[in-house]
Amino acid sequence: MPSNLQVLLDHRPTDKVSPANFRIVETPVPAPGPGQVLVRQTFLSLDPYMRGRLSDAKSYAKPQEVGAVMQGGAVGIVEASNNPRFKPGDAVVGMGGWQRYFLSDGRGLNVVDARAIPIQAYLGPVGMPGVTAWYGLNKIIAPKAGETVLVSAATGAVGSVVGQLARAAGARAVGIAGGAEKCAYAVQALGYAACVDHKSASFAGDLKAAAPNGVDGLFENVGGEPFQQALRRLNDFARVAICGLIASYEGAPTALPDMRIFLVKRIKVEGFIVSDHMELWPQALAELAGHVAAGRLKWRETIKDGLENAPQALVDLLHGENFGKMLIRVD
Amino acid sequence: MPSNLQVLLDHRPTDKVSPANFRIVETPVPAPGPGQVLVRQTFLSLDPYMRGRLSDAKSYAKPQEVGAVMQGGAVGIVEASNNPRFKPGDAVVGMGGWQRYFLSDGRGLNVVDARAIPIQAYLGPVGMPGVTAWYGLNKIIAPKAGETVLVSAATGAVGSVVGQLARAAGARAVGIAGGAEKCAYAVQALGYAACVDHKSASFAGDLKAAAPNGVDGLFENVGGEPFQQALRRLNDFARVAICGLIASYEGAPTALPDMRIFLVKRIKVEGFIVSDHMELWPQALAELAGHVAAGRLKWRETIKDGLENAPQALVDLLHGENFGKMLIRVD
Repeated sequence: MPSNLQVLLDHRPTDKVSPANFRIVETPVPAPGPGQVLVRQTFLSLDPYMRGRLSDAKSYAKPQEVGAVMQGGAVGIVEASNNPRFKPGDAVVGMGGWQRYFLSDGRGLNVVDARAIPIQAYLGPVGMPGVTAWYGLNKIIAPKAGETVLVSAATGAVGSVVGQLARAAGARAVGIAGGAEKCAYAVQALGYAACVDHKSASFAGDLKAAAPNGVDGLFENVGGEPFQQALRRLNDFARVAICGLIASYEGAPTALPDMRIFLVKRIKVEGFIVSDHMELWPQALAELAGHVAAGRLKWRETIKDGLENAPQALVDLLHGENFGKMLIRVD
Repeated sequence: MPSNLQVLLDHRPTDKVSPANFRIVETPVPAPGPGQVLVRQTFLSLDPYMRGRLSDAKSYAKPQEVGAVMQGGAVGIVEASNNPRFKPGDAVVGMGGWQRYFLSDGRGLNVVDARAIPIQAYLGPVGMPGVTAWYGLNKIIAPKAGETVLVSAATGAVGSVVGQLARAAGARAVGIAGGAEKCAYAVQALGYAACVDHKSASFAGDLKAAAPNGVDGLFENVGGEPFQQALRRLNDFARVAICGLIASYEGAPTALPDMRIFLVKRIKVEGFIVSDHMELWPQALAELAGHVAAGRLKWRETIKDGLENAPQALVDLLHGENFGKMLIRVD
């Protein structure tokens, strides 16, 4: 049996996060005690929210502890179990963190069906990112048929699901993504009616052309200057779901320059975090799994091999260098 | 019969509005034609939204036309009627504008009961401002018992109703007002648990002390720096109803400096205009009239005499020089 490789947070980033903020250690593989289950992890999930936890500023989640295994979602296979809910060979999803072996008491660990759906999809469209998309779209934007829904980070783990669910609801989905390749994929594979490249010099005009009837729902993952342009396209009674502001996590804050837009357009802006709504996860996951199993929900992954590459992969994710869901395949 | 005195918008303000933007004319009193009703107006309503209509910038309402009678709510007594819905002596409320006599086809004009309730209350707690308070509090903030609701312009036509309805709902109402006299009235007459003077140098600290458990609902009428301080007091899952931003109507825009507050605190901000929700007015007005008739809803008025003083009264209102509902008594 190989040793347990673990990635710890060594010290908090003061500015931008880098691999130097982490430290890799090799430890013995633990043996499960009474009620415990040992998971051999196969994929780690990398998510933008992780950046917030690296800082110790007051936030909605407890910060990541310095010197502890980096927290995060992961999938794997049960290797040994003293817990009646799990047996060796079970595919499971949980918060196993950045380590090869995860010793769990079973809380928050769930068995999944990895036959019809690839196991790593439980970290993507049939996992936290999928439920995030489902919640923000259905519970905040609630698009009506014929409305325009604008999605930033349109090909990302969350955005790709938002666009496809919006289209399935009869809305016209318009994406914002970084680069021509992502935009082409958004339209050709994900069914966006149009996708605008925020790296293009003609972005503002392109956005206006892509949403000729304005924007009724904005699913915001990024913030920054593209968000300012998106605000100008909002229609009366638009709903804005604030899911993430990745452009601000290591950069300038995203401001709303003039609150009068709220009055003049009677818009609603609501921030949300999907873990506040655990009671809706079963419904959301059932719907998402049905879409995936039927081939109605497409997604794409950027997979990096090797646990030791997780820190650099997180940096890449924060810079938008992923294309779809960012994953680490654990060796 | 006296002549019809009318106040017209002469030219739009380029910066701050002043009485010079208006012009007063004397015209013959019109005679009602078929289906028409002639109202002798007794009180005009002055409201912050009027400032927006003076500009021709794109907004939710059609701008006030230059050279036309200034639009606005008013109450009066029917003097002559060729409309079966009205008879001479009826007390009515409608959009009669800044003029002594209002010739109406009856649309938007409603008979009110001016026996149990003073007629001008239909321009205040049992009129548009009251319904505005009712909508923002009940439909956006929806306070739970024990929550803290913060109200800016706490003694104004809208704010005074918000505070009293919030308290009736079991919430702790905290006011923001300009000056010690308004704050004392807010606490002693309107039932606010505390009221903070935004003109005081110790405002930020006073606000913190007045809302020791943070703010769950913010009913915003003003904007500007006090609003920025109020944002810092918001609790997780706070709801912010944007009703007005009077501090920005002739001044600097009110910005939201960092959108991350939406994520970190999962707050909702929603702008609203009560005329979008006409279907709820009957329910709201019935509830408000019940409170007023039973003496459960207090209000206060600043009454200026003379139609010709309406322009200066509007300027005064925009500078917060009113104390409660600002009215013109038409001579």
